[in-house]
Amino acid sequence: MTIQKLIEQIHIKKSFLCIGLDVDLNKIPEHLLKKEDPIFLFNKAIIDATHHLCVAYKPNTAFYEAYGLKGWKALEKTINYLNENYPEIFTIADAKRGDIGNTSTMYAKAFLEDLKFDSITVAPYMGKDSVEPFLAFENKHTILLALTSNEGAFDFQTKNIEGKELYKQVLETSKSWKNSENLMYVVGATKAEYFADIRKIIPNSFLLVPGVGAQGGNLQDVCKYGMNNNVGLLINSSRGIIYASNKPDFADAAALKAKGLQQQMEAELNNL
Amino acid sequence: MTIQKLIEQIHIKKSFLCIGLDVDLNKIPEHLLKKEDPIFLFNKAIIDATHHLCVAYKPNTAFYEAYGLKGWKALEKTINYLNENYPEIFTIADAKRGDIGNTSTMYAKAFLEDLKFDSITVAPYMGKDSVEPFLAFENKHTILLALTSNEGAFDFQTKNIEGKELYKQVLETSKSWKNSENLMYVVGATKAEYFADIRKIIPNSFLLVPGVGAQGGNLQDVCKYGMNNNVGLLINSSRGIIYASNKPDFADAAALKAKGLQQQMEAELNNL
Repeated sequence: MTIQKLIEQIHIKKSFLCIGLDVDLNKIPEHLLKKEDPIFLFNKAIIDATHHLCVAYKPNTAFYEAYGLKGWKALEKTINYLNENYPEIFTIADAKRGDIGNTSTMYAKAFLEDLKFDSITVAPYMGKDSVEPFLAFENKHTILLALTSNEGAFDFQTKNIEGKELYKQVLETSKSWKNSENLMYVVGATKAEYFADIRKIIPNSFLLVPGVGAQGGNLQDVCKYGMNNNVGLLINSSRGIIYASNKPDFADAAALKAKGLQQQMEAELNNL
Repeated sequence: MTIQKLIEQIHIKKSFLCIGLDVDLNKIPEHLLKKEDPIFLFNKAIIDATHHLCVAYKPNTAFYEAYGLKGWKALEKTINYLNENYPEIFTIADAKRGDIGNTSTMYAKAFLEDLKFDSITVAPYMGKDSVEPFLAFENKHTILLALTSNEGAFDFQTKNIEGKELYKQVLETSKSWKNSENLMYVVGATKAEYFADIRKIIPNSFLLVPGVGAQGGNLQDVCKYGMNNNVGLLINSSRGIIYASNKPDFADAAALKAKGLQQQMEAELNNL
């Protein structure tokens, strides 16, 4: 998907919500567990109930790999379902991969070409030649971890590296990589005040923002400091939406939560 | 597997070789491609021919994910084959994972509990709470990326962060994490002179060393600076061994290459 199309969708739906499809069999409604593929059925119900309220879905691969072959199959079915039924949706494989060049190419092919995700999250630790293989795919997007929303972000990411915090060094350095126009960045919502500095380095890039809701981040603050003229934000919520209820009404409950966020986003878009 | 058992095996086999099982269907012998599961058959032949010359195998998950469901199945069959037939072998899932706490737990379960790998490689960028979930498993090992063997290692890893290169900061900081005795580290062979400094920070830990052979690293130099009283090294070779021939004699050719490295290692062990 092109960035232009993503921006269009944001304005059509008045939403820049991304819903994280992190399916944990211990948390989904019991009646689904008796079915053949509870993971896919859960996703399908959530997607059908919320697709008009969000512009992106983000399955985290850990939750699928944890169920082995069955999990991998459910991931395939989920992305195929999205691509066939909702081609206007931006899809994100939250995989946090990254390896030496030829190995990163294998990951890139797996997620961007075979599974046909629009984008994948990638870790920056191994540097340029571990990320560029992902950037080589046209109209596909690489979402580089910059400042994550967990406690451990303060272990290395915010440490000063040659005069600049490591996450800023990652933002700065990555701008010179080949096809860097295909880069987006993960920036956690829990540090909204950091967004102003981040926008000085990458004014135009889209940011994928986890940590609103469950992890305590504030939507208004993120928009205040992080929004640009093209919106430039995808705000992710996972648990807060998909586990709103573990009863048979779970999809409706998820839609209600998604609607709440969408309405807040609509207000922010009106301020743009 | 306990570290003690790994050390015993090194002395029994006079080898600290790890063989990387990075199966690329474009590189394996043509006659295998007509069979039902060429990836597993290739691995099985390599393992049967080389298991007495090495102490560890390391499939890189990218090469399996690239083949979707079939690839994942081949990975399962490979690790099951190793655990059933060669329980004395130390197994490494080269996955380079790392995510926020509860998500890392899902990855840890997938690789250490369900697939029963002895260890997994993990990226440090997200810090303590992204790594500790892997460390919680008894007699399982987390191999943290420190200094990788690719060009991109110089983008961030060797940059000075508060008076110390980032990779040294990773070594130093990780020592204080819970169950840090379950940590090993990836250190590329291409910078053998760095090993002396690294040993000052982590004198006792095992190091997984890629980059000997194909990537130009020198075994003798790595041993000179990197070996400790418990050997403390696993030297990995992938392409240099498994693709020694793409003819029907591929497994014998791989064994010959492995034998060459084992003999060099035996000489180094005699110097210990």
